[in-house]
Amino acid sequence: MLPDPTISDIPASIRDSTVLFAPIREHLRLLDEFLDAQVVEFEPAVRSLVSYTLAHRGKRLRPALVFYAGWTGTPPAQPLVRAAAIIELVHLATLIHDDILDEADLRHNSRTIVAQHGQHPAVLLGDAFFAQALILASEFPTTEVCRHVSTATRQVCSGEICQTFDRGNVHLTLEQYYRIIRLKTAELFEVSCRLGATLAFDDVAYADACAIYGRHLGIAYQIFDDITDLIGSEAGFGKTLGTDFSSGKFTLPALLYFGQLGVEDFAQLTEALEHHLIAPDELVQRMLAVDIPQRCAEIFHAELDKALAAIVSFKNVPATKRLGELAGFIRAQLDALHFPAS
Amino acid sequence: MLPDPTISDIPASIRDSTVLFAPIREHLRLLDEFLDAQVVEFEPAVRSLVSYTLAHRGKRLRPALVFYAGWTGTPPAQPLVRAAAIIELVHLATLIHDDILDEADLRHNSRTIVAQHGQHPAVLLGDAFFAQALILASEFPTTEVCRHVSTATRQVCSGEICQTFDRGNVHLTLEQYYRIIRLKTAELFEVSCRLGATLAFDDVAYADACAIYGRHLGIAYQIFDDITDLIGSEAGFGKTLGTDFSSGKFTLPALLYFGQLGVEDFAQLTEALEHHLIAPDELVQRMLAVDIPQRCAEIFHAELDKALAAIVSFKNVPATKRLGELAGFIRAQLDALHFPAS
Repeated sequence: MLPDPTISDIPASIRDSTVLFAPIREHLRLLDEFLDAQVVEFEPAVRSLVSYTLAHRGKRLRPALVFYAGWTGTPPAQPLVRAAAIIELVHLATLIHDDILDEADLRHNSRTIVAQHGQHPAVLLGDAFFAQALILASEFPTTEVCRHVSTATRQVCSGEICQTFDRGNVHLTLEQYYRIIRLKTAELFEVSCRLGATLAFDDVAYADACAIYGRHLGIAYQIFDDITDLIGSEAGFGKTLGTDFSSGKFTLPALLYFGQLGVEDFAQLTEALEHHLIAPDELVQRMLAVDIPQRCAEIFHAELDKALAAIVSFKNVPATKRLGELAGFIRAQLDALHFPAS
Repeated sequence: MLPDPTISDIPASIRDSTVLFAPIREHLRLLDEFLDAQVVEFEPAVRSLVSYTLAHRGKRLRPALVFYAGWTGTPPAQPLVRAAAIIELVHLATLIHDDILDEADLRHNSRTIVAQHGQHPAVLLGDAFFAQALILASEFPTTEVCRHVSTATRQVCSGEICQTFDRGNVHLTLEQYYRIIRLKTAELFEVSCRLGATLAFDDVAYADACAIYGRHLGIAYQIFDDITDLIGSEAGFGKTLGTDFSSGKFTLPALLYFGQLGVEDFAQLTEALEHHLIAPDELVQRMLAVDIPQRCAEIFHAELDKALAAIVSFKNVPATKRLGELAGFIRAQLDALHFPAS
């Protein structure tokens, strides 16, 4: 059974991202305008790749975090838009590089840069996006934004390297798993919230609270992603399930499943995995039979609860309400999944 | 015939890099110490890769530019060492990514990161090196270093993308070639000199002069590299010649050769290249027969002359003497090549 998703006076689930993003529609328009204006900053030969990448991106969740943590109810000041653009450029850089590593042909229903142009331009375009983000960061009056963004970037890369090295490691601990997702996913969520809060309000305590909110929201978001690899999502309808498992990427579902096996069963499974004697489908079925998705969902909800708890004492700040809605949106995404009965 | 390498009162050739680097031995020791101290800044799982990369690097030419442009005759202040480390980290990041693209097994006689650990960690380690460079840049009191370093990084990437897209393009113009090498090589030389000068002296005119010196030195250095692909170098003894040509990377030697062919000969060569009907060896021989290396050398020397001309009015600054020696060293490297008689 799933825990009750409603949290005291924090706004309940919002299913539709157009509803969620309505209050920041103008913010996002300014963001897109700002990003489009970056294209000419690149060398002429590179511009079509930059435009293409900008035109085929996702739901702008991380910039939304900047805008919501820095929500004042008025149109955003230019520094907030610039910060959101920096975060989005770093995120796009990591996606361009991820697509090389995953040999992905499609992202957001469009052909990836690596599929279209090959590895060489994809590695370099990702690098150029990172660099452009830092150029924008250096336009702030102090080095604070540069420091936060470059530190988060290093952590994201470190998390991804750790994950790569731990591919196929059946002895990965939950602690190691959390460390990896905190680095590879939650860091950028955290810095998005911190920058939004810092730029809009001169209040260190609030910025720190937003950063903790962002960290837990990011962890929850990654767990959501890991669950959908097991049971599918509306967005990923028709995609192959259990791909993490079959590629030796052991995420929360796998680790929880391993943890509840007896010593002999675990040894048998390890052997089977090593020699590819077990189909991903079969494994997914075994995991569903012992309610692994439901157990992951509990941890997901607990992380969202921690996110909300971090900002609960700032109820008087209008931004807090928005951050609560964003958490509600992510909660609703999970609730919308079809949890198979065990 | 080669032009006379001696330039008015600028010190003449220095053949040996240990002689060249003797005045900054202490600087380089502090640089190495500073870089070694960066290792613990990375995640534990990543540290061995970082240490390995730092232990197997080249002659530290770019940090030497920082130290020489900022030469005062006393041990370097910490900001100068930090700037040199930033430049070296950016350079190492580009090398790590280059090795992926070139599928290189060896660099500086050691196995590359990509050969040892595969593409995934190599892409991410390069990213992490960039990020660490920008973290260090954000430790300066103003955003100036961040801006220069991130801008140079974007330009380096743009230059490399342009070069990739122009692979196999026999119609590449000399103008396009100079644009590419200015971006991919000379930008980092330029910013190295600018940072060294800016941090050591409070003199905008001198910093601008050093930047122009660095730009032309970088162009000359890249031309030197392109010539060695044709006639070999002491360092690259035994390596296959004409690899640029056979991989469709048309650099200065190829472009000069194309330019002196008649319309029919050019069409015939283009056809032969397209269908791989001509061996690289044969092409190299044809280019040597019309003195292409000598013509490239003339352009190389002219670029070094421009580098020296940029700083000649700062003869009273002791750093200028050092920069002159560095140019002399690079000139001597070319002079040491064995130019085949036509």
